[in-house]
Amino acid sequence: MSYARQMLDTYPRPPAVDAGLLAAAIEAASDCAQACTADTDADLGEQNLAEMVTCIRLCLNCADICTATARVLSRPAEFDPSATRLLLGACAAICQSCGNECERHAHMPHCRICAEACRRCDRACRDLLDAWG
Amino acid sequence: MSYARQMLDTYPRPPAVDAGLLAAAIEAASDCAQACTADTDADLGEQNLAEMVTCIRLCLNCADICTATARVLSRPAEFDPSATRLLLGACAAICQSCGNECERHAHMPHCRICAEACRRCDRACRDLLDAWG
Amino acid sequence: MSYARQMLDTYPRPPAVDAGLLAAAIEAASDCAQACTADTDADLGEQNLAEMVTCIRLCLNCADICTATARVLSRPAEFDPSATRLLLGACAAICQSCGNECERHAHMPHCRICAEACRRCDRACRDLLDAWG
Amino acid sequence: MSYARQMLDTYPRPPAVDAGLLAAAIEAASDCAQACTADTDADLGEQNLAEMVTCIRLCLNCADICTATARVLSRPAEFDPSATRLLLGACAAICQSCGNECERHAHMPHCRICAEACRRCDRACRDLLDAWG
Repeated sequence: MSYARQMLDTYPRPPAVDAGLLAAAIEAASDCAQACTADTDADLGEQNLAEMVTCIRLCLNCADICTATARVLSRPAEFDPSATRLLLGACAAICQSCGNECERHAHMPHCRICAEACRRCDRACRDLLDAWG
Repeated sequence: MSYARQMLDTYPRPPAVDAGLLAAAIEAASDCAQACTADTDADLGEQNLAEMVTCIRLCLNCADICTATARVLSRPAEFDPSATRLLLGACAAICQSCGNECERHAHMPHCRICAEACRRCDRACRDLLDAWG
Repeated sequence: MSYARQMLDTYPRPPAVDAGLLAAAIEAASDCAQACTADTDADLGEQNLAEMVTCIRLCLNCADICTATARVLSRPAEFDPSATRLLLGACAAICQSCGNECERHAHMPHCRICAEACRRCDRACRDLLDAWG
Repeated sequence: MSYARQMLDTYPRPPAVDAGLLAAAIEAASDCAQACTADTDADLGEQNLAEMVTCIRLCLNCADICTATARVLSRPAEFDPSATRLLLGACAAICQSCGNECERHAHMPHCRICAEACRRCDRACRDLLDAWG
């Protein structure tokens, strides 16, 4: 079991949303930040650099928004409703854009893996938003 | 002149939004992240700790969202429209909540200064959102 | 297999250090950043807040240094030798201090889990430093 | 006066090091993180991309280490001596490497400005380390 899930299970009061969905979003955002950071470095090693520029830019933004999202979701005691929803929306949106771009380069294994991490995070953020109602 | 503004002035093509508003938002978000981080540490040194918990939690979230916002805005060549707008909205929202809470403790100089940083960032994000149309 | 390891396996040239040790350090630092962020929030919900202040401060610093370490290690193509070694040393040092403090509160499950995450990251950073020679 | 300096002046007990040197290091690290993030984006818009790869990689690492350094220094109540010194050393080291590389491209205004931000942060970190003894 991930630390994210273990930590949530130690909270005296259950969080305002389903702990499973919350843990899944924390892990997906944290993993996606890592994959996008690594993908940027791998993209920079490719021959056809000019074709990778948009991918690099999206990965950099995706890593930063995912990092902030993972941190904010890791503090479940008191969510600011408006800011958290908008941040989850921003995270899903950048993961969708970045995932689409990485998929265009899916013949490169690093972009294929990164696209998968983006898809998972996009879904996890939307599932959490849906559960919040 | 700030580095943020100097850097924007070196761009071959002008960014998609007014460089003055963009530089103001980058600086305000960067300053607010710093003020919220310092305020958390100062709050933890107060006697009446129980009364500072909400302030600390908001400052932590505000610092993380401001850090992500400053980074994303610092890459003006290609903004992802949807993610950037939602992130600016999230940043304005958390700055408003955090500024309100810090203002409740404005008799403590560190909270008064932090409230000011939050107000400035809230305004700068909303001004940028308005300019984007 | 983690994304960190999968991404490393897609690199055309193997990284300058053992990919297993590198992936372990990336994952441990990323997990420790998350555990420390969650532990801060859980600490703030405890009754005896005054006794948790040092733990909160160490967790905040540990989360920030671990986040930077995970990001820098996720870009294996060209490590700056001096900065990377010092950063790994800083990460191991803060994980040791934070782990010791969390262990003092190990009767609280959230601190016990966080101590474990700190120990694992401390070890992973030292193993990587040793391998670098 | 910067928020960093204003916040330090509100501390009931003076920090363990000179407040002027501490504020200078916080501001320099925060500014350098911003300049390096913006420089990465500007580098990606250059024609001769292959020549910018090392600069981009150093800027990305420099931004992350500077962000962590600015945050840790912004919590002056209790510094972990060993971790803080190593982190300051890592920050000075990456600023030196990144500043050297940016200087090689100083005919590009964005790299010239970024080199200046790196030099200032390198110096501020070393001044703080010297003052700590």
